[in-house]
Amino acid sequence: MSATELGTTRDELTTLYSDLQAAGLKLDLTRGKPAPDQLDLSNGLLSLPGDDYRDGAGTDCRNYGGLAGLPELREIFGELIAVPASQLVAANNSSLQLMYDLTSYAILHGTPDSDGPWGQQKIKFLCPAPGYDRHFSVCEALGIEMIAVEMLPNGPDVDACAALIAADPSIKGLWAVPTYSNPTGVTFSEDVVKALVEMDAPADFRIYWDNAYAVHTLADTAPTPYPILEMAAAAGNLNRPYVFASTSKITFAGSGVSFFGSSEANVAWQQKYAAFSSIGPDKVNQLRHLKFFGDADGVRAHMARHRELLAPKFKLVSEILNNRLGSSKVASWTDPEGGYFVSLDVIDGTAARVIELAKDAGIALTAAGSTYPYKRDPYDRNIRLAPTFPGLDELGTAMDGVATCVLLAAADKLLADQKS
Amino acid sequence: MSATELGTTRDELTTLYSDLQAAGLKLDLTRGKPAPDQLDLSNGLLSLPGDDYRDGAGTDCRNYGGLAGLPELREIFGELIAVPASQLVAANNSSLQLMYDLTSYAILHGTPDSDGPWGQQKIKFLCPAPGYDRHFSVCEALGIEMIAVEMLPNGPDVDACAALIAADPSIKGLWAVPTYSNPTGVTFSEDVVKALVEMDAPADFRIYWDNAYAVHTLADTAPTPYPILEMAAAAGNLNRPYVFASTSKITFAGSGVSFFGSSEANVAWQQKYAAFSSIGPDKVNQLRHLKFFGDADGVRAHMARHRELLAPKFKLVSEILNNRLGSSKVASWTDPEGGYFVSLDVIDGTAARVIELAKDAGIALTAAGSTYPYKRDPYDRNIRLAPTFPGLDELGTAMDGVATCVLLAAADKLLADQKS
Repeated sequence: MSATELGTTRDELTTLYSDLQAAGLKLDLTRGKPAPDQLDLSNGLLSLPGDDYRDGAGTDCRNYGGLAGLPELREIFGELIAVPASQLVAANNSSLQLMYDLTSYAILHGTPDSDGPWGQQKIKFLCPAPGYDRHFSVCEALGIEMIAVEMLPNGPDVDACAALIAADPSIKGLWAVPTYSNPTGVTFSEDVVKALVEMDAPADFRIYWDNAYAVHTLADTAPTPYPILEMAAAAGNLNRPYVFASTSKITFAGSGVSFFGSSEANVAWQQKYAAFSSIGPDKVNQLRHLKFFGDADGVRAHMARHRELLAPKFKLVSEILNNRLGSSKVASWTDPEGGYFVSLDVIDGTAARVIELAKDAGIALTAAGSTYPYKRDPYDRNIRLAPTFPGLDELGTAMDGVATCVLLAAADKLLADQKS
Repeated sequence: MSATELGTTRDELTTLYSDLQAAGLKLDLTRGKPAPDQLDLSNGLLSLPGDDYRDGAGTDCRNYGGLAGLPELREIFGELIAVPASQLVAANNSSLQLMYDLTSYAILHGTPDSDGPWGQQKIKFLCPAPGYDRHFSVCEALGIEMIAVEMLPNGPDVDACAALIAADPSIKGLWAVPTYSNPTGVTFSEDVVKALVEMDAPADFRIYWDNAYAVHTLADTAPTPYPILEMAAAAGNLNRPYVFASTSKITFAGSGVSFFGSSEANVAWQQKYAAFSSIGPDKVNQLRHLKFFGDADGVRAHMARHRELLAPKFKLVSEILNNRLGSSKVASWTDPEGGYFVSLDVIDGTAARVIELAKDAGIALTAAGSTYPYKRDPYDRNIRLAPTFPGLDELGTAMDGVATCVLLAAADKLLADQKS
């Protein structure tokens, strides 16, 4: 495009943007929240467990105890994330809490494989980016230095991970969302998983395997979960993976059940420290979930109903981005087969500007840089779109507005570049 | 008693004890667990909240958010423990978790009044004893040194507390169960409370005011809760108290709601760090409790029903101890007006022996020394009895057996003392 053409385009976009502002929108695409119609799918939970408060083993779920959670519920989710039920803990409503707690136990006491508390040395974690902001903030809260590694189409850049670890033994952790990653939608390839469990690393190096979207597919079936614990054991690195999952985006966000699976030694270690702060999880809520699902197929059938509600939203995002941005080459985006996000890459140096333009037009997007450690996107490029919460109409309006902002910011940037 | 008389008594007791062993009992008085009939009182919760998932403000409790918990539920419990709802957080199922977390935040980051993280120095807590073992284990888990102070009939020995703190600025905390203390049943006097909030102490000294039994009365009405936050503010020590409570022994143990109240600054600090590990508490469970109780009077009426079930058990314990031990002067015990425990003091040097004898007769008692820091009862004297869980028949059998063990251990001890 010539400068004149670009100027004309920019003028048109400015008009379009003024119209957008004039519309007085108030839309929110910031967080991966389920929509009310998704939550409705689980309304059966609201009057469960009913009169029966015992699990299959006869445990009175109303009383204290059972720190590892209900065995039958662990069987169901163990099957879904490829962890033996005996090595899976069912906890309260937040897998993030489990991640934070495990890290804080290591800071205060060291892992079973550590020479001493992590808190006595400088600790670093590898953070595939774009990634999940709340993983990164656990590191920030606990004083762990973050090193970004690139997220490739089949998982984190394992060669870069291995090289960084080889050069720096203070690297003790790696964040991973192996299925439908937040925000890229990437599902790790088997080669990447093998490399991650096999690579040389300190004995107390841990992979935080947050399988948050294991069953959250937009396709006919979810990917078969990797038996990461078996794979790590086969590679001689039994204690390396910490596996996490939760029902936050299956049933009720905030009122679900979270899960932690790992080697027997790691689970025993987690249970030892968890016992200092709790007598046990909310077993009645676990029983509620057990009765609601019945078995793993019950979860799969439930997720198919989520898919019916979510697939049209992801399709709409894809259509609008294609229609509005497809020909201009100023952006690229993911078309995920599952999970909760679309990852939008705009022209380098314009992501923060797009987010600001959108905000000024009443469309809230996840804060600039959020998908990178320390909220610093080195390219100022990535925007996480969370299309699940709004209704279809609102989502369409919001995405159309976002497209306008992307184009306007790009035109401004290209004009400025031509001038300089 | 002469040596001969004592010997005869001992022989009779040995026979009694053999009969006890022969009975093949399997009874458990170890933990303060509600009995099934108490849990039945809350069975209404098992099918709540029903179809309605919104609180009074219209919040959809099924979704993420609301880290401070439901305002209406905070109003109810704020009234019951004398904390303004705006300074009260409603959390998940464990107040112990709140205590642990607040302490770990201070270890890692320091309180708002600290010069730096507590973890960078030696920290000590004052532990009124006999006291609650799980308070003490929080200290052990987090590397905090414990100093026992004597529990007097009207609360902890405040003169001793003040003197210890004056001599040692590394003392940063005090555990307190102000109403129906675990295990002594002591309710603090107003003078003690005033002294605790007024005494000189470091700016980051904290009183862990665990009002676990605020409404758990065996009398006609529970004591009016001290407005500890107001009293501390009036004394110029606004940030000193951390107030805790939970519904664990009101509704379902393990599936209740916990509460943390403090100054605005402390609550903001807690919320800041809690946000790193959780997006919010289980609001559906909070709504369930809100609908179940309605208001503070609903809680009071509910506690009156608990009292009907518990009062006969405490009466039975008192009767059996009086009948069996009243004349011999080898033991003293509390006759609490509320709470969950009876504190039994036996002849110095015999508590561990009594517990061992009981165990060998199939009666499990709380482990020897549990009511003291580091599980070390310096007098080997105190035994915590938890009479709530067994049925009346079993409780009677167990208490009669315990009395036999107390007498036998005393006779053995006195005979040994006479010989030496």
